[in-house]
Amino acid sequence: SMIDDGFEHDHTIAVVDFMCEESSRFGAATLGSKAMRGKLTLNDLHRLVDTQGITLYDVLKGRNLNPDAIESMAYKRPVKAFIEIHIEQGKVLEHEQKQIGIVSGIAGPERFYLTIRGNADHSGATPMNLRHDALCGASKIILGIEEIAAMQEEPPVVGTVGIVEVTPGAMNVIPGVVKLGVDIRSISEVARNSVVTLIKEFIDVTAEKRGLSYTIEPVAQDHPVVMNPAMIREIEEAVKSVGVDYMTMPSGAGHDAMHWADDVPTGMIFIPCREGISHNPAEFADMDDIVTGAKILDTVLRKLSLESTKLN
Amino acid sequence: SMIDDGFEHDHTIAVVDFMCEESSRFGAATLGSKAMRGKLTLNDLHRLVDTQGITLYDVLKGRNLNPDAIESMAYKRPVKAFIEIHIEQGKVLEHEQKQIGIVSGIAGPERFYLTIRGNADHSGATPMNLRHDALCGASKIILGIEEIAAMQEEPPVVGTVGIVEVTPGAMNVIPGVVKLGVDIRSISEVARNSVVTLIKEFIDVTAEKRGLSYTIEPVAQDHPVVMNPAMIREIEEAVKSVGVDYMTMPSGAGHDAMHWADDVPTGMIFIPCREGISHNPAEFADMDDIVTGAKILDTVLRKLSLESTKLN
Repeated sequence: SMIDDGFEHDHTIAVVDFMCEESSRFGAATLGSKAMRGKLTLNDLHRLVDTQGITLYDVLKGRNLNPDAIESMAYKRPVKAFIEIHIEQGKVLEHEQKQIGIVSGIAGPERFYLTIRGNADHSGATPMNLRHDALCGASKIILGIEEIAAMQEEPPVVGTVGIVEVTPGAMNVIPGVVKLGVDIRSISEVARNSVVTLIKEFIDVTAEKRGLSYTIEPVAQDHPVVMNPAMIREIEEAVKSVGVDYMTMPSGAGHDAMHWADDVPTGMIFIPCREGISHNPAEFADMDDIVTGAKILDTVLRKLSLESTKLN
Repeated sequence: SMIDDGFEHDHTIAVVDFMCEESSRFGAATLGSKAMRGKLTLNDLHRLVDTQGITLYDVLKGRNLNPDAIESMAYKRPVKAFIEIHIEQGKVLEHEQKQIGIVSGIAGPERFYLTIRGNADHSGATPMNLRHDALCGASKIILGIEEIAAMQEEPPVVGTVGIVEVTPGAMNVIPGVVKLGVDIRSISEVARNSVVTLIKEFIDVTAEKRGLSYTIEPVAQDHPVVMNPAMIREIEEAVKSVGVDYMTMPSGAGHDAMHWADDVPTGMIFIPCREGISHNPAEFADMDDIVTGAKILDTVLRKLSLESTKLN
């Protein structure tokens, strides 16, 4: 939704993001904001496919839209501020018993595939000391990623291995090849880069020790963004006027706001969600929290709509 | 092949086992010996299917055989001895630079599936200290299995995780469920059981520490067999008469011989194979080694055919 009186003066864009069936269809989120900022290319529309192999380009075409013009469709009118409200998609607010989270920044993920190669020998006929087990090497690395990420506390970094593919994958064969999907995030690019460097050194030492080889295939390296200090202050004032417990926190997940933050004063409000579950039919937010969040959004928008409110 | 002069006196069965396309078709080996020993049931023939879903029962029927009679087809004639020659399917002979291995016993595998359950939270939105990552727990257990098996040196035990399935298996989701296929082998049932006990304790402690739950689903628990001491002596004499370097060693892989060893004096000869590769088009044995193996087999069979050779 957009507060827009039709005049060409500065205005604020507010996004109330909720889960919809389409959001995960193309395995990519925040495409609307990306398009509005001129960052969604024609090539992206052809590249993004759903599970049936239908491209986003064809879906847009089928809805009588004009995907060929996507690159010239960036939103060019002056924007005073951007504000987004979203469920946390994590357990921090629940754990800390806070009703509102004020987002300090949005983490940028660095993602890569790591392929580890050993020897696919017979599990019965190969003594323990003659093995080059790619899975044992991978396990050491998975635990190393967990430990190195946990060690970096302020600002925090999270490190996750979410994908494991073992080849050949049989009871009687020692794993010869293991492919891991690695995801490292922080709102601090410096902290994230330092963790990634330590992880890559650890991978190298582990492979060397165990007589394994490896290759790393980069997937993404997005830069983190910080929320605007004046917007954080405006949200904080609104939260205080509503009178609920809150905390300032980073967002580990990506959001529409990350596409605006470099160019426009941007802020973001989190409300709690049950057990951190999202993108799932079990997603649930308490009606009281939704109402509290809407009240704060309303308060901030009213304040921003005053010409006297300056953000810089 | 069988040395059989048609008379009803004791005779020796010799198996020269070589790889053939059919051997892996039903995901089960040594079915011939199992059938001869009366251990292959009608139920097995219906249960064993190839990748096309065709049962072994239907294949036998299609070849004008009589699968319904399988359980009464056990080989009932008196057998003096059973001897088998096979490639090692491992790297020990190559590593130790020996031309012949005399098998001391055949390891029995204990196999189980271990399913570990944690929380499939968002990889970006969940701080390291709020995670219950099933894959990190699984990695700790995989390394524990490696270490516990390696610690048990005499008699040796081998422990392998060859199968890993991660759910949901996405870059941005912490693994919620991980299923491991575990294979533990030794020619000593006592050593194997002690390792399995330690592994199960380690699984329990690891799950407890990390707030994970788990279930264990047994797959197989075959007992190891020992080769007959008189047969080992006969093979050793033959090896010495041929004049090559040899060693006595356990077989980690299963073989026809394991179905006979409980009832008949049984022995087994290994020849080296390149890099331990087997059940694979890259399998290779040197012609000199094949000839040496055949000479030893011939020598042993000639000796066993003498009525004066007593095995007990």
